[in-house]
Amino acid sequence: MELINGNEIAQNIIEELTLQVAKIDGVKPCVVFIRVGEDPASISYVRKKEKTATAIGIKSRLKILPENISQEQLLVEVEKENLDPSVHGILVQAPLPSHIEEKIIFNNVSSKKDVDGFNALNLGKLCQEQDDAFISCTPAGILELIKRKKIPTEGKHVVVLGRSLIVGKPAGMLFLRKGFPGNATVTFCHSRTPDLKSHAQRADILIAAIGKPQFVSGDMVKQGATVIDVGINRIEDSSKKSGFRLVGDVNFEQVASKTQFITPVPGGVGPMTVAMLMGNTLEAFKRSK
Amino acid sequence: MELINGNEIAQNIIEELTLQVAKIDGVKPCVVFIRVGEDPASISYVRKKEKTATAIGIKSRLKILPENISQEQLLVEVEKENLDPSVHGILVQAPLPSHIEEKIIFNNVSSKKDVDGFNALNLGKLCQEQDDAFISCTPAGILELIKRKKIPTEGKHVVVLGRSLIVGKPAGMLFLRKGFPGNATVTFCHSRTPDLKSHAQRADILIAAIGKPQFVSGDMVKQGATVIDVGINRIEDSSKKSGFRLVGDVNFEQVASKTQFITPVPGGVGPMTVAMLMGNTLEAFKRSK
Repeated sequence: MELINGNEIAQNIIEELTLQVAKIDGVKPCVVFIRVGEDPASISYVRKKEKTATAIGIKSRLKILPENISQEQLLVEVEKENLDPSVHGILVQAPLPSHIEEKIIFNNVSSKKDVDGFNALNLGKLCQEQDDAFISCTPAGILELIKRKKIPTEGKHVVVLGRSLIVGKPAGMLFLRKGFPGNATVTFCHSRTPDLKSHAQRADILIAAIGKPQFVSGDMVKQGATVIDVGINRIEDSSKKSGFRLVGDVNFEQVASKTQFITPVPGGVGPMTVAMLMGNTLEAFKRSK
Repeated sequence: MELINGNEIAQNIIEELTLQVAKIDGVKPCVVFIRVGEDPASISYVRKKEKTATAIGIKSRLKILPENISQEQLLVEVEKENLDPSVHGILVQAPLPSHIEEKIIFNNVSSKKDVDGFNALNLGKLCQEQDDAFISCTPAGILELIKRKKIPTEGKHVVVLGRSLIVGKPAGMLFLRKGFPGNATVTFCHSRTPDLKSHAQRADILIAAIGKPQFVSGDMVKQGATVIDVGINRIEDSSKKSGFRLVGDVNFEQVASKTQFITPVPGGVGPMTVAMLMGNTLEAFKRSK
């Protein structure tokens, strides 16, 4: 069993990006974070992204909007950033309040500034295997981990647990692409899959993105599989000062010893997501020239 | 075993569309077919589409362009139709000559007139489960067959053989959607899948879209499965006047008796593709109002 150290790989990417940004004369890349309301997880995620941007030398600006903003008004705010030539990337932090339809917002972020890759045009281009798509950051991070660890994918069976637009669907589509990482056989399972365990057991690479704490148990994983844990769940833990700890969608204790490679939570996919976002921002900047 | 009669179902759809078009006062829906070169199969497909449009009362116009047209000039021709308010749907018949990059052409057909559903924006919206996507006609036709035959999909295992942008990928994504037909577990296999037979054998619904004549043999299909054959291949047959006959990607003789439902070739998915194209054209017309 080898632990995939997402912190270390993300840090390598951040260093690579820092060197690239340092070479830019004049105006530096700029990303705008739009946060609606005061959800503590969103505050924490956006803060992490701001810090990473600063570390790399990417400018960032945080726009905080009230919880009760209307969808129309939020669209107006997004459009301002779409039109601002000094802004290269726009990220609207999800989840949005329930009165706002997220997809409408994501689809109205300019596809050229859509560093989150949630826009329908970028998602379609990902399916088309077009090089100029912005790929959503968590799936892109998963692929980058596979790539840097040189884990073979061709002809392998990738089983994705979860069909979300943000992780499951794009991740599976990426493994279907020609080339490396890609050329895999891909199965999508989800909440309506009755025999999920038997599908998971056949995976050479298992992507757990189903949003259920420690859902993947030891008997669901084939000996020698690679397990990528995308879940970030808080569970109560009275031994912690905070009263909780973070766990993934995988029961790490049961699963780890059976795997060839496994990502921990925290410190696996999470830091990669932020690193890939920064890569997308630099790419958006380059394309704007 | 029950044969799914695509001709009959397509005819029902055509009759439904005819009634709807008859009710439109004034200007009727109009679709433009752009054909590049003189490929006999393309000529035949476009002719079939023209005839069906006429039968329904949809106006059509055929634009024939020379085989050696440049990509740039073809884009100019597409843009003319994008800008023409009397045109509601545009179909650029594939395959295009090898010097033209098809995806570039498809992505430059206005997404509002993209009745073929090949545009990246429509493909992305399909993944997003947005209602306003134009869904490419063959996958839409497959879903319509499943729907009209009331074949259960929830929790069923759909195995798609083929990862093309025009059939395999969108068909699989459609079966992943919430609702009916949908909520299936979906596996994508393709030319790089080493153990394709073992995957196919597990399918409750097997979609053969791999472009190899009679590829799916009897031992690849589970007893009681539904088999949808998307292939249209010409094979030599000296007993025919033409010297050839059409076969699917499924070895019908071997497979049919094991299935619960199966589509024949010809007369299965093929006629549905044309019917769904007409449905998309009427929809594009309605949305243009």
